[in-house]
Amino acid sequence: MKYIETFKESDRVSDIYLCKHKQAAVTKNGKVYENLILQDKTGTIDAKIWEPNSAGIDDFEVLNYIEVFGDVSSFQGALQLSVKRVRLCREGEYDPADYLPVSSKNIEEMYEELLKYIKGISNEYLKKLVEMFFMQDEDFITIFKKSSAAKTVHHGFVGGLLEHTLGVIKLCEFYAKEYPVLNKDLLLSVAMLHDIGKTKELSLFPENDYTDDGQLVGHIVIGSEMISEKAKEIQGFPQSLLNEVKHCILAHHGEYEYGSPKKPALVEALALNFADNTDAKMETMKELFSSTQETGWIGYNRLLETNVRKTSGQ
Amino acid sequence: MKYIETFKESDRVSDIYLCKHKQAAVTKNGKVYENLILQDKTGTIDAKIWEPNSAGIDDFEVLNYIEVFGDVSSFQGALQLSVKRVRLCREGEYDPADYLPVSSKNIEEMYEELLKYIKGISNEYLKKLVEMFFMQDEDFITIFKKSSAAKTVHHGFVGGLLEHTLGVIKLCEFYAKEYPVLNKDLLLSVAMLHDIGKTKELSLFPENDYTDDGQLVGHIVIGSEMISEKAKEIQGFPQSLLNEVKHCILAHHGEYEYGSPKKPALVEALALNFADNTDAKMETMKELFSSTQETGWIGYNRLLETNVRKTSGQ
Amino acid sequence: MKYIETFKESDRVSDIYLCKHKQAAVTKNGKVYENLILQDKTGTIDAKIWEPNSAGIDDFEVLNYIEVFGDVSSFQGALQLSVKRVRLCREGEYDPADYLPVSSKNIEEMYEELLKYIKGISNEYLKKLVEMFFMQDEDFITIFKKSSAAKTVHHGFVGGLLEHTLGVIKLCEFYAKEYPVLNKDLLLSVAMLHDIGKTKELSLFPENDYTDDGQLVGHIVIGSEMISEKAKEIQGFPQSLLNEVKHCILAHHGEYEYGSPKKPALVEALALNFADNTDAKMETMKELFSSTQETGWIGYNRLLETNVRKTSGQ
Amino acid sequence: MKYIETFKESDRVSDIYLCKHKQAAVTKNGKVYENLILQDKTGTIDAKIWEPNSAGIDDFEVLNYIEVFGDVSSFQGALQLSVKRVRLCREGEYDPADYLPVSSKNIEEMYEELLKYIKGISNEYLKKLVEMFFMQDEDFITIFKKSSAAKTVHHGFVGGLLEHTLGVIKLCEFYAKEYPVLNKDLLLSVAMLHDIGKTKELSLFPENDYTDDGQLVGHIVIGSEMISEKAKEIQGFPQSLLNEVKHCILAHHGEYEYGSPKKPALVEALALNFADNTDAKMETMKELFSSTQETGWIGYNRLLETNVRKTSGQ
Amino acid sequence: MKYIETFKESDRVSDIYLCKHKQAAVTKNGKVYENLILQDKTGTIDAKIWEPNSAGIDDFEVLNYIEVFGDVSSFQGALQLSVKRVRLCREGEYDPADYLPVSSKNIEEMYEELLKYIKGISNEYLKKLVEMFFMQDEDFITIFKKSSAAKTVHHGFVGGLLEHTLGVIKLCEFYAKEYPVLNKDLLLSVAMLHDIGKTKELSLFPENDYTDDGQLVGHIVIGSEMISEKAKEIQGFPQSLLNEVKHCILAHHGEYEYGSPKKPALVEALALNFADNTDAKMETMKELFSSTQETGWIGYNRLLETNVRKTSGQ
Amino acid sequence: MKYIETFKESDRVSDIYLCKHKQAAVTKNGKVYENLILQDKTGTIDAKIWEPNSAGIDDFEVLNYIEVFGDVSSFQGALQLSVKRVRLCREGEYDPADYLPVSSKNIEEMYEELLKYIKGISNEYLKKLVEMFFMQDEDFITIFKKSSAAKTVHHGFVGGLLEHTLGVIKLCEFYAKEYPVLNKDLLLSVAMLHDIGKTKELSLFPENDYTDDGQLVGHIVIGSEMISEKAKEIQGFPQSLLNEVKHCILAHHGEYEYGSPKKPALVEALALNFADNTDAKMETMKELFSSTQETGWIGYNRLLETNVRKTSGQ
Repeated sequence: MKYIETFKESDRVSDIYLCKHKQAAVTKNGKVYENLILQDKTGTIDAKIWEPNSAGIDDFEVLNYIEVFGDVSSFQGALQLSVKRVRLCREGEYDPADYLPVSSKNIEEMYEELLKYIKGISNEYLKKLVEMFFMQDEDFITIFKKSSAAKTVHHGFVGGLLEHTLGVIKLCEFYAKEYPVLNKDLLLSVAMLHDIGKTKELSLFPENDYTDDGQLVGHIVIGSEMISEKAKEIQGFPQSLLNEVKHCILAHHGEYEYGSPKKPALVEALALNFADNTDAKMETMKELFSSTQETGWIGYNRLLETNVRKTSGQ
Repeated sequence: MKYIETFKESDRVSDIYLCKHKQAAVTKNGKVYENLILQDKTGTIDAKIWEPNSAGIDDFEVLNYIEVFGDVSSFQGALQLSVKRVRLCREGEYDPADYLPVSSKNIEEMYEELLKYIKGISNEYLKKLVEMFFMQDEDFITIFKKSSAAKTVHHGFVGGLLEHTLGVIKLCEFYAKEYPVLNKDLLLSVAMLHDIGKTKELSLFPENDYTDDGQLVGHIVIGSEMISEKAKEIQGFPQSLLNEVKHCILAHHGEYEYGSPKKPALVEALALNFADNTDAKMETMKELFSSTQETGWIGYNRLLETNVRKTSGQ
Repeated sequence: MKYIETFKESDRVSDIYLCKHKQAAVTKNGKVYENLILQDKTGTIDAKIWEPNSAGIDDFEVLNYIEVFGDVSSFQGALQLSVKRVRLCREGEYDPADYLPVSSKNIEEMYEELLKYIKGISNEYLKKLVEMFFMQDEDFITIFKKSSAAKTVHHGFVGGLLEHTLGVIKLCEFYAKEYPVLNKDLLLSVAMLHDIGKTKELSLFPENDYTDDGQLVGHIVIGSEMISEKAKEIQGFPQSLLNEVKHCILAHHGEYEYGSPKKPALVEALALNFADNTDAKMETMKELFSSTQETGWIGYNRLLETNVRKTSGQ
Repeated sequence: MKYIETFKESDRVSDIYLCKHKQAAVTKNGKVYENLILQDKTGTIDAKIWEPNSAGIDDFEVLNYIEVFGDVSSFQGALQLSVKRVRLCREGEYDPADYLPVSSKNIEEMYEELLKYIKGISNEYLKKLVEMFFMQDEDFITIFKKSSAAKTVHHGFVGGLLEHTLGVIKLCEFYAKEYPVLNKDLLLSVAMLHDIGKTKELSLFPENDYTDDGQLVGHIVIGSEMISEKAKEIQGFPQSLLNEVKHCILAHHGEYEYGSPKKPALVEALALNFADNTDAKMETMKELFSSTQETGWIGYNRLLETNVRKTSGQ
Repeated sequence: MKYIETFKESDRVSDIYLCKHKQAAVTKNGKVYENLILQDKTGTIDAKIWEPNSAGIDDFEVLNYIEVFGDVSSFQGALQLSVKRVRLCREGEYDPADYLPVSSKNIEEMYEELLKYIKGISNEYLKKLVEMFFMQDEDFITIFKKSSAAKTVHHGFVGGLLEHTLGVIKLCEFYAKEYPVLNKDLLLSVAMLHDIGKTKELSLFPENDYTDDGQLVGHIVIGSEMISEKAKEIQGFPQSLLNEVKHCILAHHGEYEYGSPKKPALVEALALNFADNTDAKMETMKELFSSTQETGWIGYNRLLETNVRKTSGQ
Repeated sequence: MKYIETFKESDRVSDIYLCKHKQAAVTKNGKVYENLILQDKTGTIDAKIWEPNSAGIDDFEVLNYIEVFGDVSSFQGALQLSVKRVRLCREGEYDPADYLPVSSKNIEEMYEELLKYIKGISNEYLKKLVEMFFMQDEDFITIFKKSSAAKTVHHGFVGGLLEHTLGVIKLCEFYAKEYPVLNKDLLLSVAMLHDIGKTKELSLFPENDYTDDGQLVGHIVIGSEMISEKAKEIQGFPQSLLNEVKHCILAHHGEYEYGSPKKPALVEALALNFADNTDAKMETMKELFSSTQETGWIGYNRLLETNVRKTSGQ
């Protein structure tokens, strides 16, 4: 298979890709064409069908897998595919795993690493709580491993939620070592649990979009409620501890305007907020840098509210 | 019994009151005394024990009922009680109902009115949901009737939560009549349910203070979770309807900075936000006006961020 | 006459419409064409003149009534009219009433309803004041009935100002019934008067755009001044009452950042602010919903600062 | 007469002063005394009546003129007067002019200077407008000369409004010379008129407090309306010019949050905003510096939101 | 030479211009063309090369001087140049001074005026400091005279920094005369020095863009540091005076959100902030007005956050 | 020596302490007394001299060391010392080290740890730069070790600046290990240098207060300038690297409103901002918790804008 990241000007392409986006458009003198975005696990490319009603163009929908035949051209520094023929593919002709953006780290290895952190928790209630999610609830585990941590922004790929969760855990473990004021068991537990609501806020790939639950309720409240439900099944789980766990989840965005209904009142809630923010922003910068060939200034970033620059370090 | 609202200068007082507040203080030349706030259902009065270690002063704690003997004086427009003797009372000597601020409306009548609104709901799932709270859950009903809607601010009295809930319901019913774009069943249901989390956010009178649940989780998320739990027991409750109910609860403060993790995305959520805010502010103004003998300007109000004035209307 | 809301794909159109907007544009290869928006009372449609200099295209201006001959096509879910011939019409060929967006309610009936509310006012000065506007000033009455409440946003149609005013009055009457702290005469009077400045802030249809007065002074201050002028003609109108009326007008947007030079200091000013906001937002949602065929999520709304969703209610 | 600014420790005082403030207080062991602030045109001093009910203390009210007999002591760097006897004075015993804070500049000379600027205006309508206020309306002129520009903050003394107005005029004249984009006639006219509403927003000395008009309507809208009234009497005053004048008045605070219902849309409105702000802040700093003997840092200032420091310049 | 400001519809152009901007674009049916902006000292014009690969089109880069042959057309009120032929010019064929936007005032005369203000400073240290920049540092003087005060916004032309600096000095001198609380020597010195960091924040024309220093450090801190360096060479320069000078530079934007690390704590810092802001906004309005043929309302301005209008003054 | 942290009710005290604060006060009936705060390295205590003019009370000033004789009493949960006699001590009678709050960690050990991190830097220019501060500049090293990181807030003790700097370095080293996008040499260097300006912003203990430099210029700009000066002495230090170092210092508060003149544009600047904030807030929480005997809720914290609670963890 010819991966998108290997495309270069003048290439002739004839392979199967996932159609991620499809929209009719019209030229200024009234001619209709189609704008597509094609995707495989290595990236995406803009594509145009200039003659959408010609014989060689099958009917197809967004999220279909299609075999395309066309030519790569370069325009204003970006590559574009002119599509001459399209054939709609049947299941079995392709392996979906080839078409989804995926963590560069091994998902099973990350999962094993997570399990090791769970083993290290001493508090029996907290240990039981995280085990119920990450070791006993097969449906949850399956979805958690496949989930992204976001629609766009950062960690927006298969395994992204697991990768981000692990990043936050590692920061929290380091904090707990450096700052004895922190309760390590509580902090590591809420690090593991902080974004579990995202398994319901976002649909799985290839769609990876906000669900109704996600837009109406949000992953913060969904996650808090998932924890309440599991805790209820644990004999003797102390109410005050449950409140503290839920508070950390509810406050982990740190500020009301980021959708947290509570501001951090516990030092562990504060630490979780720092870990979440640090891991998210480091990944954001990494993805930003790898998305461009520019060196030096790479333009204004809305999230960071400033122009951003690749460090020369020299 | 001699009610506090009837006290006037030079009265001699000898009756039982609830001690709402008690704190030692010291005069500038080192003499210790006690500041008290005494309460009955008609109001509160500042009291001083100038000789706390004298023979006639029993040991007692905050929230004890005490028989006090003393004289009312007037200073800077406010009445004050100089306490000469204090006797700690036993249960049975007093009727707690005489000592708590209480709605000026009849609680049972308000409850009957609430039930009538429930009868008017057509949607079977919503009707079942509100019935499970307000008609079938005896523990909930008992506490709901006794709860205040706030520690201070507005409706801070026994029955206040019911009175505020009913005020919101009436506004919502009027809105539903005037604006057909609103789904009446949904709107009235969320009006009934919008503040049920306050039964856990605040402890009952005489304490009426924030609980740990209240401070760590907050009535918005508590209420949303209470609804999830009941809905789970209702066969066939549609997930999309449940999401819409919960969204209205989560968004009813209208803005992130007021602790809502979601902004109103449904027209019913928007209407509920208006009804809640309108009823709360009208009651705030009413309580503000009745707390002062001033006419005209009555000073700066932090909530309204302006000086406030009683209308002359002439 | 063939109304715009009845247009469908492949229709051939040959009728008179109001030209609401007209702007030359150019295709990427240099060909000039014209973008139009045509309007009748049932809606608007985008139209294109691809050959603006051809023989069948009369000269015409924005706000002219033109007879157009062309074909309806559909593109990306929206209808578009390709105009082949245009003829400029003379007065008499058309009835302007057919071409303006208009309240779905009967204007005269709404006006009668308003008069009933005026009859219910007891305070002689307030009654006289509102009568001078709504019963005695013929010029004002004529314009008030034709005015919209906004250029876009909400109630942007003939009769919109009257419809919005009546909506606010009804809410205020309900408030006055529920909250005895409110002075009903004052509240209903300022409800009637709150937006009268809009008769000078916006020009009448078909233009319906901001006037110089509107942009430089604004309807809030214009309205306050109109009231001062009338009150001066009323023998013995109490200064304190006039101040209270004007304060309610000046404060009815509630916050400085919405152009109110005062924040509500009177309970009636606060109530008016709630009524105005509630009626405006309910109408905004109604217009938003009826402007789209979408169900469920209908996109981000700048005014509400969130994605908006049509309620399923199921 | 012995002026307050000449008081020093151990002085014995026996003279007439204005009682600006009077409030009963109580010592920690229950003894009642009176806190006074006495004022003459050179300043104010705290005074205490430790034996308010003794024979030598006449009954008197705030804003009475009283003859006091007492001793000056020094405490924590501030002087204090212990009052032994008080006699209530009758009109005629004192000259009110000796008791009010007053501009350090000569009021009549400032008024003459203002008249010169009026003579320099060329536009006949604007000239007529300002003449109607400052040359023909005797009541207005009398009050304008006596008014302060504020209750506290800056220019809070007799003649302060005139002094501030002249300061703004001078800045505007300089701007008009430096920046030809400005219409000098318009700018100087609105400089003269910008704060005339303060003659109704604040009562005259010795009271110098907000009126009902002031709190409910505010000097910005009051001033705009005063201008409309006068302009109506001027034959042929162009509506567009009147709108521009009023816009400058309405926008002269520059930002909505400072009570301006419009933001500056004209370059003259922008210039007026700068002149008003510059003159006000320079005077604020001057008054701040002269109110303290400190050199170097003189503490946090709420208006400037920073610690403030007297410049060493060395 | 045919200046751009004299172009009119149907003109045939055949002259040398500076290419300020160049970007390939593509029409909807795939044809490539070039968008240019051509510049001379009288203005800029949009230009199109519809056939970029044709014989008559030389290769050239942004900031090259090119001889163009083409026709002026008018579209939607704006002029556009259709370029038929392009020839790349060699140094010597053109005078760069003809191609740069330049102050309408004489640079050497402005510089002489600046020197006069320097002569008027009495404080020996401040005088020495400003002399070291403006009279002794030839490299600095050369660059300072050529610099603009901004990339866009205001004073974005050769000599703009000098013109703006002089405008600020004049305002400050006027302030110092009107407000004796100001230390004139300090204020005039910091007026001269306030934007010297811009000589390093922006590159010179024709580029006139942010440098790395500019984006990473900013002209405020750069300027403060330049002053420290020079002051170190002045024997006995008082540390407290240096701190005050630097404070005025650091605080001259007035608010943290405008990039000032300190808020004005000295009255001279406050005055400098007013002068800088006043001069910048007056020039902004002047440039805004001269950039359009519109009278009356000229549209929304992001900087002023309002619609802007040319004053009629009638 | 009897340390303050060991005081308990009814203790009789007779030892030498540092007088940190001294202010005269007066009781309501006119009696003068003195409020003191006494300090040793274990804490502070409020003290009162009820008879300041009695024979046994020597004259003394703030920051004198005094021998006090008195009794400890308890009031409202806080201890207080009633001082009967005061003797002013001479140098030599006490060891200043016993009287200053000091890091609980060993200063020399922390310094050695810092040196190890310096050894690990590979980039020759950065290594040279940090060596010039931390290994070669003896004056700087001496002051750096003694400095606090703040007047109050967090790390407000001798060695606090070193302890905070080391905390930030450790976080940054961990970040660099976890996020390869970071340039480790640059990040560790700016971690070491980020607060060096505090050595000039704050005076040393026992005063530990803002200097003029500190208030007028601030530690961010001071530090940036200190770096420029040293870098100038390093042959060949690349300008782009210096800009990046300075940018990280200038942006390390993250937001304009916290006094940063630049927002983080480099990923290392962003990481430094997180590390600084994390270490500061963890220490703030630790100090907050150790300052109170309360368990559970310990009151509203202005910095965190919420009530704060000690975690139960159970």
